[in-house]
Amino acid sequence: MPKGKLFLIPSVLAENTAQQVISPQIREIIANTKIFLVENIRTTRRYISSLKLGVNLEEIHFELLDKDTPPETMSRLMLPLMNGADIGIISEAGCPGIADPGAVAVAFAHQKGIQVVPLSGPSSMFLALMGSGFSGQSFAFHGYLPIDKKERTAAIKKLEAESIREKRAQIFMETPFRNNQLLEDLLLSLHPNTNFASPKTSQDLTK
Amino acid sequence: MPKGKLFLIPSVLAENTAQQVISPQIREIIANTKIFLVENIRTTRRYISSLKLGVNLEEIHFELLDKDTPPETMSRLMLPLMNGADIGIISEAGCPGIADPGAVAVAFAHQKGIQVVPLSGPSSMFLALMGSGFSGQSFAFHGYLPIDKKERTAAIKKLEAESIREKRAQIFMETPFRNNQLLEDLLLSLHPNTNFASPKTSQDLTK
Repeated sequence: MPKGKLFLIPSVLAENTAQQVISPQIREIIANTKIFLVENIRTTRRYISSLKLGVNLEEIHFELLDKDTPPETMSRLMLPLMNGADIGIISEAGCPGIADPGAVAVAFAHQKGIQVVPLSGPSSMFLALMGSGFSGQSFAFHGYLPIDKKERTAAIKKLEAESIREKRAQIFMETPFRNNQLLEDLLLSLHPNTNFASPKTSQDLTK
Repeated sequence: MPKGKLFLIPSVLAENTAQQVISPQIREIIANTKIFLVENIRTTRRYISSLKLGVNLEEIHFELLDKDTPPETMSRLMLPLMNGADIGIISEAGCPGIADPGAVAVAFAHQKGIQVVPLSGPSSMFLALMGSGFSGQSFAFHGYLPIDKKERTAAIKKLEAESIREKRAQIFMETPFRNNQLLEDLLLSLHPNTNFASPKTSQDLTK
């Protein structure tokens, strides 16, 4: 029996945008997939509902996936692929495997000779970089900066030095409730000649 | 008069995929935009035609944009925005401004208080990273490596060292006709414990 495919399926960045930003390809694959490994089941159900595909959510099987999913659980989660069923990975927002769970499952699939199919869709990081006007010829993504003030300031200084040395745009994330604190730390720490850009909210990114 | 908006519009990575991978949002914006700054006029015409939007290509105005477009030309290219017309930027493949022209126009728009609207769509770099199974928690993009063999080997060694030190996935590009040479250089230069992934062709990325 041919093995199933592992689809990496981007999700929306903001509510009520699925009909506008999700491609026909993703709609078709979601409509034809019955097993999903997801970061958040409730969010994913809402995402799939919002696509208005006419699928019955009761017939879809969801399993949780996070970056700490142990190998033995991974074996079980991936078993349907060995038996010919397709599986879709959907993270809470944006692209699975990029600043989100998924990479471990993909690595596992490669080891087992399972075809991995990444799909194009929303990524807050890419929208932020495109919208910044900074050079996209060289950039790096660093996830979250440390929360501790001293460590965070040191991290900011290190990224700034690397940015100047390597002519590289630096991208990092913050949770909404810590955004203002991060902005303050950046304004205090960065050199006046260093450029900084921040999209106002994830909602903005899709408008 | 309100100023126009500058739309950053992703393009397809492979021919005959537009109907599948391009979102309704992008279709709508292209259908309603009459001025485009593009990396390649012929490719962009073909892209817009392939969307089957029913637009008359004769009514669309195309201007070339590259990363060396001088400031005085940029002023002229951006003038319609000041007069209330929207402009779309479309690169040859993937996302404008990321490893493609566009960033200079965006920076210019920010200076003039023009709203910049990045849109979600295909990016070969993101598909490659998602599909690799490498951690997307920390990664860097470096564009093209040097062509000179000695410089290239040095660049590979430097990226490998940084990858180990920073636990960072390293992404770079190559033109199709130099792909095999790059693969050979990587196999010769990289440590046996270093992981490497390569999507076979851009066509694969969209399947």
